[in-house]
Amino acid sequence: MERKALLIVGDGMADRSIRELNGKTPLEYAYTPNMDRLAREGVCGLRSPLEPGLAAESDVANLALLGFDPMKNYLGRGVFEALGLGIKLKEGELAFRVNLATIKDGIIVDRRAGRFNWDKDEIVEALNRIEVKGAEFSFYPGVEHRGVLIVRGKRLSKWITGNDPHRTGVPPLGIRPRRNGEDELRTSKLISEFLEKAHKTLSKLEINERRIKQGLLPANFLLIRGPGVYREIEKFEERYGIKGCVVCGFPMVRGVCVAVGLDPIYVEGAIGGINTNYIGKAEAVVKCLKSYDFIYLHFKAPDTASHEGDYEGKVRVIERIDEAIGRIIDSISLDEVVISITADHATPISVRDHTGDLVPFLLYSSEIVKDDVKAFSERWAYKGGWHRIGARDLVNILLNYAVKPSFVEF
Amino acid sequence: MERKALLIVGDGMADRSIRELNGKTPLEYAYTPNMDRLAREGVCGLRSPLEPGLAAESDVANLALLGFDPMKNYLGRGVFEALGLGIKLKEGELAFRVNLATIKDGIIVDRRAGRFNWDKDEIVEALNRIEVKGAEFSFYPGVEHRGVLIVRGKRLSKWITGNDPHRTGVPPLGIRPRRNGEDELRTSKLISEFLEKAHKTLSKLEINERRIKQGLLPANFLLIRGPGVYREIEKFEERYGIKGCVVCGFPMVRGVCVAVGLDPIYVEGAIGGINTNYIGKAEAVVKCLKSYDFIYLHFKAPDTASHEGDYEGKVRVIERIDEAIGRIIDSISLDEVVISITADHATPISVRDHTGDLVPFLLYSSEIVKDDVKAFSERWAYKGGWHRIGARDLVNILLNYAVKPSFVEF
Repeated sequence: MERKALLIVGDGMADRSIRELNGKTPLEYAYTPNMDRLAREGVCGLRSPLEPGLAAESDVANLALLGFDPMKNYLGRGVFEALGLGIKLKEGELAFRVNLATIKDGIIVDRRAGRFNWDKDEIVEALNRIEVKGAEFSFYPGVEHRGVLIVRGKRLSKWITGNDPHRTGVPPLGIRPRRNGEDELRTSKLISEFLEKAHKTLSKLEINERRIKQGLLPANFLLIRGPGVYREIEKFEERYGIKGCVVCGFPMVRGVCVAVGLDPIYVEGAIGGINTNYIGKAEAVVKCLKSYDFIYLHFKAPDTASHEGDYEGKVRVIERIDEAIGRIIDSISLDEVVISITADHATPISVRDHTGDLVPFLLYSSEIVKDDVKAFSERWAYKGGWHRIGARDLVNILLNYAVKPSFVEF
Repeated sequence: MERKALLIVGDGMADRSIRELNGKTPLEYAYTPNMDRLAREGVCGLRSPLEPGLAAESDVANLALLGFDPMKNYLGRGVFEALGLGIKLKEGELAFRVNLATIKDGIIVDRRAGRFNWDKDEIVEALNRIEVKGAEFSFYPGVEHRGVLIVRGKRLSKWITGNDPHRTGVPPLGIRPRRNGEDELRTSKLISEFLEKAHKTLSKLEINERRIKQGLLPANFLLIRGPGVYREIEKFEERYGIKGCVVCGFPMVRGVCVAVGLDPIYVEGAIGGINTNYIGKAEAVVKCLKSYDFIYLHFKAPDTASHEGDYEGKVRVIERIDEAIGRIIDSISLDEVVISITADHATPISVRDHTGDLVPFLLYSSEIVKDDVKAFSERWAYKGGWHRIGARDLVNILLNYAVKPSFVEF
């Protein structure tokens, strides 16, 4: 019997032993009856985000998780964010992740212009009026201070630096070639010219002048990073022979999924944060199970809580993810779906960043041979029947239990 | 002390949790005191047929199991079947696996001519009289409807399609080049001409006319697949430094073993089916242990039962394999032999085809450090001391405990 395949990922959900949680991890400490049930009735194991002990950014980690070689398919963060925002890119277009930031006397004061949450229309319009000879620039706003800058022109190179020093109190970096070529030099100059004009334009905007008067931080500078040039990469359907979709509010990860051809499903109120629409996402999954063979459900919240060092918040969002999983498994026949749950990587509260720790995974199918694991956690997964798998193995394993096996051709 | 090495494989023996067997797998449900004893007194682990989650055909799976890289050593099913039938092939000869089939008004009625079990002499003779300018064709009969077609000629290519659509109610496929070359085109034409002549010749055969009158299906068409061109590949003795033999009734797997230089041992009544001569094979193994350092004992029966979806039959053949293993270990000194038992791949009853599930293996030697495993099964193997090994590791591990270790040269 063919079954549907559901992959559920808690971004950065894996963690370490936390003293304040009596030495437990957030996943152990949280009340997660649904994940525990699937672990108990399924089989568990461990994986690394990339190679044992190596950390990975979310785009790289998610490419690998979906089975794609990041070395061959990595397009740059800018491209993934753009695709995640629903922007259609053409071969050769250059994309950057952008922060609307505040600069004063040449020094970065805030990398997020006061955690920007005001209207961006005036800013977008002004930026898109800027003209630079030799290329066309478009700014697309994302959530809060985030946005994407697309550069369209001839022979643009991604081998240039961004200008974001990733800290305040220093000037922005200059845009420099990272390879010794004509295209790199020309692209750097084009971008530098645009950024200078953007700074001038933004500084004069009425909205920013008003903010300064109110003692608020103006959005007068673009910090850009993660350059990438778009090209077609291998598609999920080519690789696995089935159609899939992604339910994910976080643009970067959604963009990785779009890059490999998963259909993005938008859920109201799911914008990749702590207070996402958990139940709405669960309901979207239940609906998608009718029309797709593979569904990727991604929750950004545990990673966000981890970056903030908020272990109580992390426990809480894990419990809300578990509730969402409960909603799904109560709405479907477990004979018809194979489910895997994992984290794309660990983001330990103590580190407040991604690490290369092992992450647990579970695999549930009503016909799978169970192991002795009684709950879903980092610790129980040590005893998992699948032991340790490679970073890119999970989707193959999941689909092996779901659809008719595809034989390797020789 | 040097020991002999015995590798015992139940084809497709691994399975999933089966509701009708109280959630057990056939291997768990079957009464297998001998395998359980070896597991209890040895060490267990898990392996994949190829890569985690990926399924493999038996020829590919057995190449990997014997330690050979299928990417480098795969010769095509036709070649392996031919070698398995004892046909001597020369470099450059092209071989196909053949089904004697029934066609009516251009449509395939039965891919096996009524599961052919009548005399084939007249058919063989007629086919071998067919002349095609530019190549020489020979048909060799196998068990039941099976056979092999060898093409001898200059610059024959394996990059052509077969004509078997793998279903009835449709016409056979045309033979087409799979690469854009002169050799591919010429080879396709030669084969097409032979197949046309074969159809005409078979249609006129007295034996077929007689069958039609009796309301039986005639064997009037050749369905061919799995083209391969013979060449020498790496040999077991070169690779491992010892001589080995194979006790296997199933031509394709025997052919893989012959291709890597294992001597085929023929046992009366062992023709690769459910009712093979289990005890005869066990006795052959005991005899071979006197003259060979490595013996590969293969049972096709569990795979056959699995493809038929017959879980009771699968339990029964596993019990008969266990009896055969009992006969072996009762006839030898366990101090002198290292034994490994595994499946080349899983063929779950629910899927009725090969899958990429993990398969268990055991390793017995009187001096091996035991783990806590109490029986030989998919579930117990989760707890095996060897955890998970790569698809091609088992023979190295087995020989490590048997003969003097061979050091990798640098």
